[in-house]
Order: sequence, then structure tokens, then C-alpha cells
Amino acid sequence: MLVTVGSLAFDDITTPFGKATRAIGGSATYFSLAASLFTKVGVIASVGTDFPQEQLQVMRQRGIDTSGVITTRDKTLHWSGYYEYDMNEAHTKSIDLGPYANFVPTVPEAYATAEYVFLANIDPKMQLQVLAGIKHPKLVAVDTMNFYIEKDPQAVKDVIRKVDIFFCNEWEARELFQTPNLVKAGKEALALGARWAVIKKGEHGVLLLSKDSIVSLPGYPLENVVDPTGAGDSFAGGFMGYLASTGDLSEAGIRRAAVHGTAVASFTAEGLATKRISELTNAEVDQRIAALKQLVHF
Amino acid sequence: MLVTVGSLAFDDITTPFGKATRAIGGSATYFSLAASLFTKVGVIASVGTDFPQEQLQVMRQRGIDTSGVITTRDKTLHWSGYYEYDMNEAHTKSIDLGPYANFVPTVPEAYATAEYVFLANIDPKMQLQVLAGIKHPKLVAVDTMNFYIEKDPQAVKDVIRKVDIFFCNEWEARELFQTPNLVKAGKEALALGARWAVIKKGEHGVLLLSKDSIVSLPGYPLENVVDPTGAGDSFAGGFMGYLASTGDLSEAGIRRAAVHGTAVASFTAEGLATKRISELTNAEVDQRIAALKQLVHF
Repeated sequence: MLVTVGSLAFDDITTPFGKATRAIGGSATYFSLAASLFTKVGVIASVGTDFPQEQLQVMRQRGIDTSGVITTRDKTLHWSGYYEYDMNEAHTKSIDLGPYANFVPTVPEAYATAEYVFLANIDPKMQLQVLAGIKHPKLVAVDTMNFYIEKDPQAVKDVIRKVDIFFCNEWEARELFQTPNLVKAGKEALALGARWAVIKKGEHGVLLLSKDSIVSLPGYPLENVVDPTGAGDSFAGGFMGYLASTGDLSEAGIRRAAVHGTAVASFTAEGLATKRISELTNAEVDQRIAALKQLVHF
Repeated sequence: MLVTVGSLAFDDITTPFGKATRAIGGSATYFSLAASLFTKVGVIASVGTDFPQEQLQVMRQRGIDTSGVITTRDKTLHWSGYYEYDMNEAHTKSIDLGPYANFVPTVPEAYATAEYVFLANIDPKMQLQVLAGIKHPKLVAVDTMNFYIEKDPQAVKDVIRKVDIFFCNEWEARELFQTPNLVKAGKEALALGARWAVIKKGEHGVLLLSKDSIVSLPGYPLENVVDPTGAGDSFAGGFMGYLASTGDLSEAGIRRAAVHGTAVASFTAEGLATKRISELTNAEVDQRIAALKQLVHF
């Protein structure tokens, strides 16, 4: 099983080409929808009574275990943001953490023996609480966001010390390690103890570093980017879901995982909010991977 | 022979990590140094008497024909610019066009039978004057810059109609075709008549489009970017020089040309101004191409 802790949320999204209000979103939503294409996922999250039960039903139909989702009296986390013309960077207008302000995550018994863990971008303290509840994980990955880096960079680094793979985007990498250079930033994450640093660059693809190797893959060039929201979480979901399905943690296995993440993320950006990722099939993912292979062939 | 028209210039460069004053620069300088690794290059340019003859000697030692370089009473073109922390985009502080304000390029007889032509970023009118002087070119490529796009976008488009390959960077593509989407911008260049649109994305690599295919290659991840000045012209030089050396204009040939351009450009950014490209060897280029192959392998 692949266990994730993250947010189930409402998103207000404005792009130059579209608008959504109270769309279903959140890191755990995108991550689990993506990962469930490849493996069994268990979600730990907290929602308010205003969160639609139908969405949890949709997730269960995809084979996602939602027994770790608790319902509280708070209102569901609500993010509001916008994209400018180039759409590479999400700008936050407001965020109401709702139940995540005081979330004490608990790990259901069925999740405690999970081999794979993905700590999506919530408070580092909560990430560690979840990690403590998993008995003998084979591989642990963590993501973060600027919000937590600015609040307490040391806490973010403390989590990196305990994981195998550190995911972040290019701005977060530069901010956390105080360098404009992504190779240097990645090496700093390795120096903290991560085996792989995975730096997501939006439409420009992804850069992966380990002690022995460096991997760089372009994004799939889309003619119609509708909404990049959740693309990064979908990348991580495709990556981790594929990795959990193969169990191949070799460099070759990591490279293939990155390609699966890239393919899945490209679909997410083609639809508003979760529209496209919700209906994505494995056959479509395989087709796009074949196209990615052609893209970089020389 | 590969003929190019462009600038030989002085550059004042400020980056967060270094500074150069009156360094030798200009599009024709970087392009011809890069291309001369692979093929015979002839340069058409105009300089003032203040331009050091030793630099033309350095170029001739690399097998570059400088008989198309004329010396005028004007002062040599002088560009002054800076890079911010992320170093992806050059910001122009000032540009004194010098002899290029009234340049009427003439094509030496030895150049008139050239098979390959690269019109670097000078006034579109001058680009067309050079093109008219080449009898039966096998392949013509053009580059441009924001300065000419803002001055007269129609003139830039008129040149694209007459060439096989259109080079530009991502900002220029967005500005010229009024779209944030690079795939759409590339398709607009193809609609004008170019066979290939080559969109340079700095550290993020390059996107190539033709009617039948799409190619995307990452940049070589550098741990120490010293000065990106001239990297785009070096990319074009490596690309066109390699293409001229093989004569292979098939899609596979274009892909290999793009990889050669990527490798050469990465070295340019590792040194201030022309320092690194001036001493680059073919063996180093081949090594970096092998590394690029590993980078994208999956």
C-alpha cells in the first residue's frame, strides 16, 4: 500500500482562460487520483462537514482507501489562487487551513504496514506524526510548499533528513536552500540525507539528482494548458504510484517513475481542477509515455 | 560554407556572480566560434576602428573567414546588460548600435555560393539584403530579438516567410505571436512557412516543432552558471555548424543538430563572455553529448 497524508480541499482558481469556484482540490486529492492508476492508495486527511461525500465515493471507486479521512466541525480547507499569463507559478490569494490548523493525524491500523509513504505538503510536524505511525516503510517521500519554508525552514529540513525522496518545485528549492542554482539546491537536499531530490519545473519538466546521477526530463509540450493546479501533486502521484507498483527502486526504476509522473501531470493541466485526472486511463498514460520517448530521442 | 551575418560587439555584463566591461561579444562572435567547431564559417559584420584586430586573428585561427567584416568610422556596437538572480533572461540597460545603425551588408564573392546561411539578430532589412546575395542556399535560418519584434513585428514575420528554420527564445516567441503557449507560437512560425521552429528556453533547454514532429530537450544542468550571454547564439552556432557538416536535413539530423547546439551552449554559460567557448574542443562537446544522452534516458 501507498499511504499519503495531505489535504482534501476546496479551490477557487482563476487562470487567464478559465475560472472555478469551490472546485474539489488539495494535494491528497490529486496525488491519490494519480497514484490509484497504478497501485492501492490509503489517504489520511481531514475535512469539514461541508465536504461532499460523493467525492470520497469517487475516490473509493478508484480503489482509494479513505478510512484515514476524518470529518471535523471545521470548514474544509479552502485555497484561493490565480495564474498569470505564463501560468507557470500559482499565486495564492488566500488560504483558510480549516481543520489543518489543528490537525493531529492518526494512522489507521490498515495503513500501518504500508511499504510506501508520501507526505504531501502539510505542516512538517504533521508529516512526522504520520511517519511515526508507519511501522517499516520501504520508501518514504516528502513534498513541501513555500508556506512552510517561509514559516520554519528548519522544520522542513528536519523532515528531509528522515526521507528517501524529497520533492519540491523550482521556486521552493531556490528558497529553501538559498541558491538560484537547482543543481546546487538538489545537492543540499542530498547532503541532508535524501537519496533523491526531485525538483519539479512545471511545463519545463523535472530535474532529479542522486549522489551518482542526474536526470532531466522535459514536460510534455501542451498546446492547451487549461489549469496547472494539482499538476505537481499529480506528478508525485504518478511517480510514487508507479514506484509502488513495481517495487523497483534502482536508478532505472526511478527514471521510469519520473516519466509516469510527467505523463500523468500533463493530463491534469489539460482540464480545470480534477476534471481530466478523474477520468484518466492507463492506456492514455502509456500513449503519452510513448510520445515522451519520441520527444527526447536523438 | 556556412555564412552568418550578425554583430561583433563590446558587451558590458553584470551578473550576480561576475562583471565584465567591454568584453568581446555579439551574435556573430558567439555563433561563429561555436559553428567553427564543425564547419567552415564566413562572417559578415561591421566594426569600428576600436575593435581589436587580435580578435579577428583569433577567429581566423579557428578557420573562420573574416573577409566579410568591414571596418567603419563608427564606434563598435556596444551592448550593456545585466542578469537577475535566476539568470534566465538578459536585461538590456543600453545598446549603441554603432555601425549597425546604417549597415548595408555586402556579401563577399567567396560567400555567394554558400549552402548554409544563418541570419543572426540584426535588423530584418539587413538580414534580407544578405539573403539576396547568396545564390542557391540549401538551408537558411534566422534568429531575432525583442528589439526588432517591438520595432516592427511584420518585418520579422516577412523574414520568417523566406527561411527554413526560425530560431528565437521563449519570450520572443510569446511576444511575436501574442500567445503564452510555446507550442502555439511555434505553429504560427510554421504557418508562415518555416520548416522548423526552434524555441530556445535557456537553462530549460529547447523546443523544436515541424509539421510532423515535436522535439523537446532539456538544457545540460550546470552547477556553475557564470554568464549566459551568448549561450543562445552558441546554441545556434553548434546547431547550424553541425548541420552544415553533415548535410543531413532529415528529422534525425535536426535532432542531432539540436543536441550539438545544447552541448556547445552549456559550455558558453560556464565562462564569462567568450572565455569558455573560445577554448572549447570537439572532444569536450562529444563528452557532454554523451552526458545529455544519459540525462534523458528512460
